[in-house]
Amino acid sequence: MKVVIVGANGAVGNAAVEALSERHQIIRVGKTSGDIQVDLEDVASIRAMYEAIGKIDAMVCAVGHGHFGPVDEMTTDQFIEGINGKVLPQINLVLSGFEYMNDGGSFTLTSGVLNRDPIKGGSGAAAANGAIDGFVGGAAIEMPRGIRINAVSPEVLEVSRAKYDGFFRGHNHVSNEAVGRAFSKAVEGLVNGQILIVE
Amino acid sequence: MKVVIVGANGAVGNAAVEALSERHQIIRVGKTSGDIQVDLEDVASIRAMYEAIGKIDAMVCAVGHGHFGPVDEMTTDQFIEGINGKVLPQINLVLSGFEYMNDGGSFTLTSGVLNRDPIKGGSGAAAANGAIDGFVGGAAIEMPRGIRINAVSPEVLEVSRAKYDGFFRGHNHVSNEAVGRAFSKAVEGLVNGQILIVE
Repeated sequence: MKVVIVGANGAVGNAAVEALSERHQIIRVGKTSGDIQVDLEDVASIRAMYEAIGKIDAMVCAVGHGHFGPVDEMTTDQFIEGINGKVLPQINLVLSGFEYMNDGGSFTLTSGVLNRDPIKGGSGAAAANGAIDGFVGGAAIEMPRGIRINAVSPEVLEVSRAKYDGFFRGHNHVSNEAVGRAFSKAVEGLVNGQILIVE
Repeated sequence: MKVVIVGANGAVGNAAVEALSERHQIIRVGKTSGDIQVDLEDVASIRAMYEAIGKIDAMVCAVGHGHFGPVDEMTTDQFIEGINGKVLPQINLVLSGFEYMNDGGSFTLTSGVLNRDPIKGGSGAAAANGAIDGFVGGAAIEMPRGIRINAVSPEVLEVSRAKYDGFFRGHNHVSNEAVGRAFSKAVEGLVNGQILIVE
């Protein structure tokens, strides 16, 4: 299969690359790294990315950023950072991707643990994850041409433990292999509309 | 208690009014109706609404609109209608409401059935509901001064059966009383971080 992995250079994206690259043709996409660059907050840039890649069998997106901070100090602009930094990029990759997706292909998005197991300062991220999970469930029942859509919702990765030190006290840490298996199930299996929790 | 009900003239908001008005002072807010008018897509208008009302014990929001249509024909602007029409209004009512909310008060938002039981054309609404549910869970754990936040997530109301005829085939319809009890539980009880499902 020809598999596009957006955010391939990040921790989660790299777990997807590790799980899929032995058996498939991987096109790595990043903001500044990878085979092709894209600005995910610009729909024209997303379209140009697909145009450069052509027809695909799977799109995996493992990107997202947003504001972290106390809810009672959050501004609307800070809340919108998570919409613009995580929700719209992932949804736009789907909306713009249909015409490039082969029959029976798949979209796999990445949400995360914070809408089921919240942390201090994480309400914006929880909303973003909830939007992605909701979209996946809503979209899955009407995907055309046998195309599937799922989300991987991982706990914090072992490799990100140092980066997030102190933010996720008491949370599990999961291996690249465990996260990779979820992407493998989404891309190489036949599940549809699933939130694949890794914890 | 002094309870603000935003969207009081809608079907869901009216169910909240019916459940709470016997025991509490209700301030009805609408776009064009009610005691006070607000443009929920304008943060300045939301702030002016709170300024006019003053200190409150509870804010109930029962509004939201967005695009309905097949996911593979949806544009990003159509997707954003649900963000701007349902997610941001409800979240901004919380973010701007802290300084007007008395200690131990509550915010009650309204999501809906579509992110747990999807319908054709409902992926945008499912994402919006998921964002609201996610925000509630994320925000609840760090609400200041004993303030609580919950969401009511109702099935289609009996009174809206004709309006949505054909869109929700096979779905249950719920009574005003059942929906009102959920708002009563959120406003008059002590639950926090709950998605109060009515189905």
